[in-house]
Amino acid sequence: MGRIICTGLGPGDPDLISIRSDRAIRQASHVAYFRKAGRQGQARRIVDGMLAAGVREHAMEYPVTTELPFDSPDYIHCLAQFYDDWADRLKALVATGAEVVVLCEGDPFLYGSFMHLYLRLKDHVPVEVIPGIPGMVGCWNASGVPMTWGDDVLTVLMGTLPEAELVRHMQGADALAIMKTGRNLPRVRRALEVAGRLDQAWLVERGTMPGQRIVKLAEVEAEDCPYFAIVLVHGHGRRPVMGGEE
Amino acid sequence: MGRIICTGLGPGDPDLISIRSDRAIRQASHVAYFRKAGRQGQARRIVDGMLAAGVREHAMEYPVTTELPFDSPDYIHCLAQFYDDWADRLKALVATGAEVVVLCEGDPFLYGSFMHLYLRLKDHVPVEVIPGIPGMVGCWNASGVPMTWGDDVLTVLMGTLPEAELVRHMQGADALAIMKTGRNLPRVRRALEVAGRLDQAWLVERGTMPGQRIVKLAEVEAEDCPYFAIVLVHGHGRRPVMGGEE
Ligand SMILES: C[S@@+](CC[C@H](N)C(=O)[O-])C[C@H]1O[C@@H](n2cnc3c(N)ncnc32)[C@H](O)[C@@H]1O
Ligand SMILES: C[S@@+](CC[C@H](N)C(=O)[O-])C[C@H]1O[C@@H](n2cnc3c(N)ncnc32)[C@H](O)[C@@H]1O
Repeated sequence: MGRIICTGLGPGDPDLISIRSDRAIRQASHVAYFRKAGRQGQARRIVDGMLAAGVREHAMEYPVTTELPFDSPDYIHCLAQFYDDWADRLKALVATGAEVVVLCEGDPFLYGSFMHLYLRLKDHVPVEVIPGIPGMVGCWNASGVPMTWGDDVLTVLMGTLPEAELVRHMQGADALAIMKTGRNLPRVRRALEVAGRLDQAWLVERGTMPGQRIVKLAEVEAEDCPYFAIVLVHGHGRRPVMGGEE
Repeated sequence: MGRIICTGLGPGDPDLISIRSDRAIRQASHVAYFRKAGRQGQARRIVDGMLAAGVREHAMEYPVTTELPFDSPDYIHCLAQFYDDWADRLKALVATGAEVVVLCEGDPFLYGSFMHLYLRLKDHVPVEVIPGIPGMVGCWNASGVPMTWGDDVLTVLMGTLPEAELVRHMQGADALAIMKTGRNLPRVRRALEVAGRLDQAWLVERGTMPGQRIVKLAEVEAEDCPYFAIVLVHGHGRRPVMGGEE
């Protein structure tokens, strides 16, 4: 029996992959990765030049969704079917003795698509998951400003949340990372404004990737925002900062 | 002129260091790291066996604090002095042309002591910061359970916060990571109980390090808890989970 190894790839720069993931990727005879139909896919792009000659590639293409709204029961059913199918295909591969390396941007267990396969696979075949540097961590390092001090509260939000919920959490936390900004950028921006935090917010597009861009959110027009973009509000330390513990 | 390179080391397992940090550590002629007086220090322990022969080691020992309470003005002053001194010593080293690799557990910009040196150094000498996998990310992967789904809200809390604040944030978020549990474990536990979330909480001690231990928090006595310990409450997805975006 083979096994599944899910490798966290980190934020985008291949130099930020861990030693263990790097080794697994370079030795892989099978790699699998999610992508939108017709695209190369970000995970696949990160490992360009790292794959062994003759590797078998399995592109797991998300079902096309132009007719179905993202939150319709039909779309959700269609997606569940897609994960079921791929879990079956990967199980069949593993049964032939193959070791399949699944490529995952950032950290696999932080809002990662792989988690849907993981739940379907883990009781049937051996699965190893290798953590990665989350995209947001690469982004706050790229910003050149420390993220959290002392006992700052850090809250991670999805730009897909309703505006009122965004506002409530933005008011309650010290440091903020808001993912899935993309098309949701105008709502995220409005929420930050209502919460009184727009002037502290940074937009990081494609952090650590080619085309990285870091700007004050208040200074950009509510414009086209890529999928790989995050909004950051850095913490400043709510109480005197203490060290010396170990 | 030399420079400072701060390397994020990840959660503890040296195999989880990034390619870029690994390279910087192995090539270093000077390494510096924080530790408590009389201890080896976790950062130094992680790179054991990786340092070149003849490397110069600079142990930055936190001032001894037995007489001063952690939040007293005297202690805070004493700590500021300590960071000032080390910033000056590192600047002097860099002026001789040395490249100094600072070792930092997890990610340097997430509640890291290095941030205090960074603010003192960044306008005077070249400083590069290499992100790392945060300790909490290593811990949730070690738990074998995905951390956040869909538009779950993830909140990161310090066990040093007052109990009422812990409770409020525990009630408001979906997924929780509570750091600096150590001596604060009894308060963290009480707060989780009040927030109605104790039965979902896991305690991860020394995640990805030798001596790793993962237990349901409700099943441990409020006992001795090491400094490298974290409490996790995993998210479950507040709305139907959607994929297919890129
Ligand atoms: C479905 S989540 C997956 C997160 C991934 N598992 C991780 O740990 O980063 C995708 C979101 O992560 C954020 N993201 C990931 N990498 C990024 C990068 N390099 N630059 C900017 N945003 C990034 C974006 O907000 C994007 O919409
Ligand atoms: C001052 S914070 C520094 C965090 C570090 N910069 C990071 O990114 O993980 C120290 C706290 O991180 C948590 N921590 C870090 N690594 C850990 C590990 N391997 N296992 C458990 N807890 C860890 C503990 O809660 C500890 O009290």
